[in-house]
Amino acid sequence: MSNLYLAVIGVGGVGTAFLSQLAALPAACRPTLVFLSRSSKQLYSQNYSAVSAADLQSSTSKLLSIPDLTQYLSSAPGKAIVVDNTSNQDVANAYPAFLRSGISVVTPNKKAFSGTLQLWTDIFSAVEQSNGKALVYHESSIGAGLPVISTLKDLIATGDRVTKISGVFSGTMSFLFNSFAPADGSGNAKWSQIVAQAKEAGYTEPDPRDDLNGLDVARKLTILARLAGLKVDGPESFPVQSLIPKALESAGSSDEFMKRLPEFDGEMEQYKEDAVKQGKVVRYVGNVDVPKGEVKVGLEFVEKGTPIASLRGSDNLIMFYTERYGANPLVIQGAGAGGDVTAMGVTGDLIKVVERLR
Amino acid sequence: MSNLYLAVIGVGGVGTAFLSQLAALPAACRPTLVFLSRSSKQLYSQNYSAVSAADLQSSTSKLLSIPDLTQYLSSAPGKAIVVDNTSNQDVANAYPAFLRSGISVVTPNKKAFSGTLQLWTDIFSAVEQSNGKALVYHESSIGAGLPVISTLKDLIATGDRVTKISGVFSGTMSFLFNSFAPADGSGNAKWSQIVAQAKEAGYTEPDPRDDLNGLDVARKLTILARLAGLKVDGPESFPVQSLIPKALESAGSSDEFMKRLPEFDGEMEQYKEDAVKQGKVVRYVGNVDVPKGEVKVGLEFVEKGTPIASLRGSDNLIMFYTERYGANPLVIQGAGAGGDVTAMGVTGDLIKVVERLR
Repeated sequence: MSNLYLAVIGVGGVGTAFLSQLAALPAACRPTLVFLSRSSKQLYSQNYSAVSAADLQSSTSKLLSIPDLTQYLSSAPGKAIVVDNTSNQDVANAYPAFLRSGISVVTPNKKAFSGTLQLWTDIFSAVEQSNGKALVYHESSIGAGLPVISTLKDLIATGDRVTKISGVFSGTMSFLFNSFAPADGSGNAKWSQIVAQAKEAGYTEPDPRDDLNGLDVARKLTILARLAGLKVDGPESFPVQSLIPKALESAGSSDEFMKRLPEFDGEMEQYKEDAVKQGKVVRYVGNVDVPKGEVKVGLEFVEKGTPIASLRGSDNLIMFYTERYGANPLVIQGAGAGGDVTAMGVTGDLIKVVERLR
Repeated sequence: MSNLYLAVIGVGGVGTAFLSQLAALPAACRPTLVFLSRSSKQLYSQNYSAVSAADLQSSTSKLLSIPDLTQYLSSAPGKAIVVDNTSNQDVANAYPAFLRSGISVVTPNKKAFSGTLQLWTDIFSAVEQSNGKALVYHESSIGAGLPVISTLKDLIATGDRVTKISGVFSGTMSFLFNSFAPADGSGNAKWSQIVAQAKEAGYTEPDPRDDLNGLDVARKLTILARLAGLKVDGPESFPVQSLIPKALESAGSSDEFMKRLPEFDGEMEQYKEDAVKQGKVVRYVGNVDVPKGEVKVGLEFVEKGTPIASLRGSDNLIMFYTERYGANPLVIQGAGAGGDVTAMGVTGDLIKVVERLR
């Protein structure tokens, strides 16, 4: 194969899992790793020979700025690919420049695709103008390694009309509601107890408000809506129901928030009971109604026996309603978070980019 | 893009839907259609200019044999792709020759991948030896347009270990059991009535025994097992439970079979009741146990509330259990039959082949 060169930005949970998946790829689909960085360390080779991830920690390389990195990669003796395993907005903002310089991008970073509509347009017009030379793949920006984005793109590319996208897009929200209000009626813990338990088990962000505000789900819905053709301005441009009680929005520390959360258990209990009265269960759901151009995120009462009501653990579930599929949607379900499965989406994308570029 | 040339074999339900999807593709990802055939008609242009599907019926072209077609396509002034929309074994047997001549293959035809292990090996070693020049894609050979094969390939390519594949792989079987023994206990029709109703609605093959013998499901399981790394000799090499009562295996015509089927309703009723006694429902399930190297197809009692028990209509459902996904499988669900959704899988594959070849 023609030589391909790889830069990996970010060596956290996803980045580490990705590097170990990368190392296990057959040589024929593994580009040469020439650049690796974490927050304040960089490792790269001036002459584009392979670097070893093990040497990052002890590296004393002078730090390249993003424009320097772009320059470095576009001067490589073959095509270059950036894998961005961060959730950093600055790196995301650099994608158009990477792509215009003929550098492909593979990433789970939601920021690039759920930020301003301008950034989205810049990214995809750079891809289009590259005429197949610079590609962008971002499967893991929704549902980790689940085939969500590839499926939506296939539906659209083959001429189907997507009418509605609906589902549970957060592993944390899934766990909270599957525990709080399971379909078999067995749940009897208070909402605040469930949140505390999820926090202790590491299922939430360090500050659970970063999950409960719904922004993570809103970002994913922004991406899906845009892929489905809607010009969505961003995750703040449609209704998103926050599960942070108004009075606790500025409650100070995460501990302070958790301490006061029980005061508001009655509100969530009410939702649960109202759903039960209708023979349903309450879930945190995201919806894109394509013909109406509407996106929304929040609590919904869901019929028992449906795939969403039957979810278990912290699984994600995504339903595509389309003209071809008719009344029964195409459904994808499974773990939507975790280093290994997120990295799997990244590695799978990288393989596809390599297959197309070589 | 460099020129790509397309031959389409088969213009039945899937073929017709495929041609209409093909016509709607943007010119940039649409290869030039130079050859089109149905059972006893062929249309092609000597100088590799585009032909129009509308002219097939009135074509008086001399019929090309498969070796002639291989010769014709390998002499094209650019790379060639065959789309085989038949379920013909002879065409399937020609894939290794196509691939060795640098011609890529896209197909929903199960026969190539569930036939002899030798044919499978010949196909994939031809792909490997082509070094990325000749590709084979067959998403629609299982679950129509559902992303089943691409997902399994991604799991394996990124280094996950698939431990078990389980699901409902036949739209007909799905409809029969979802109607006969729905999870809410509402079903009260006899088995033979359900089969008759499905036959009338066109949900079964003209002779329902072609569904009830389980061979179609066994073919799909053969493909999945082989993709997962098992050397399966073919659909007759593992246990497949036929739902054709022994006494009716040679009952003559389809009508004769349908007339006598009610005599055997007791047997299916017994399965249904036995399942209910265990709080379960009976379903027709296929399983691949990868570490044990076991494949089997037949009736199973399935826990209520699980995705399989909750299936509706004629949906397929495929569960991948893997090391990375742990206890909760990656699940794909939706319509697994029908011209439009099958053609969608073919068109989606064609787009990927075009992206890789150009």
